[in-house]
Amino acid sequence: MRAVLYLAGPDVFLPDAREVGRRKRELCREAGFEGLFPLDNDAEIHASPGRIFAANCALMRRATVGVCNLTPFRGPGADPGTAFEMGFMFAQGKPVFGYTADCRLYRQRVPGTPRSAHEPPRDPDGYLIEDFDLIDNLMLTRAADESGGRLMAVAGSSSPGAGTDLAAFEAFSACLAAIATLLGDRAGA
Amino acid sequence: MRAVLYLAGPDVFLPDAREVGRRKRELCREAGFEGLFPLDNDAEIHASPGRIFAANCALMRRATVGVCNLTPFRGPGADPGTAFEMGFMFAQGKPVFGYTADCRLYRQRVPGTPRSAHEPPRDPDGYLIEDFDLIDNLMLTRAADESGGRLMAVAGSSSPGAGTDLAAFEAFSACLAAIATLLGDRAGA
Repeated sequence: MRAVLYLAGPDVFLPDAREVGRRKRELCREAGFEGLFPLDNDAEIHASPGRIFAANCALMRRATVGVCNLTPFRGPGADPGTAFEMGFMFAQGKPVFGYTADCRLYRQRVPGTPRSAHEPPRDPDGYLIEDFDLIDNLMLTRAADESGGRLMAVAGSSSPGAGTDLAAFEAFSACLAAIATLLGDRAGA
Repeated sequence: MRAVLYLAGPDVFLPDAREVGRRKRELCREAGFEGLFPLDNDAEIHASPGRIFAANCALMRRATVGVCNLTPFRGPGADPGTAFEMGFMFAQGKPVFGYTADCRLYRQRVPGTPRSAHEPPRDPDGYLIEDFDLIDNLMLTRAADESGGRLMAVAGSSSPGAGTDLAAFEAFSACLAAIATLLGDRAGA
């Protein structure tokens, strides 16, 4: 049975969100998967928050795998909406994958006090900075491992004119390859 | 049966996280609930990410209600770890509540282009700003409503020396009152 991937991510906020969604779904097809992008349901775009929420939940329930764009959005970490969806799919017992165009560890993204054996690093507000060798909050990153998924961090060749690489196509492609390997392993097991 | 509340939030990153957790659990007790705070499991604090993850998931599975501190953390929106846990508990079919000390709507927290009937507001990077009358990403905020929970935004009287009110005790107390009302309604129904 063909895997159905829910493509969570802040991609929906990009100026060219529809085109990004189209290309990511195309890459899924080429890899032998069906990709579900939140904007697929065009009728819902201008709908109420309640209808968009219901449409996204329906897509997540239909999907068999979560593929989450964890590239930092308006801060050093993942988009909270994406994190919510990752938790939703993890709780359903589905494998969740994460990918990011930002290869730095989380602690490297947040300015803070120096590392020490006695004190955890803290940001200028005094808040603790998670000091693990992880690319984001441990709940998100561990969910990938615990569910049988993977995390892929691949720096993108940013497109001309784009300040950041929020779509993270290179990391996304690496993630699809990892999913193909995992599902191949499973099918062959 | 006494409701068991999982107290998700970036509180765990506060310099006085243990004390905040102790006070929140005490407030739960006074309201007739049992509160589970991620730091409760002291043995796990210095443990590996995998053990912390497993301990938090065990607490979430034991809890009957999610209570999520959505006060903005390192950006205009909720802590991604908290958002993950909200999605996890929502997917389990449990009521999820949110509270925040920041009463602004999400679009008021992000500098952007003026509102217009034709174009959604965009931030300086060109990314769309969700333009609903909601205090955070629609997935999080709708989950509260759809699950039978509530959102409580109450500005805190920030403590001396504290730049922000990340613990959001006033909003937390309002949230506990809302939970008591909801569960009372249910018990009486």
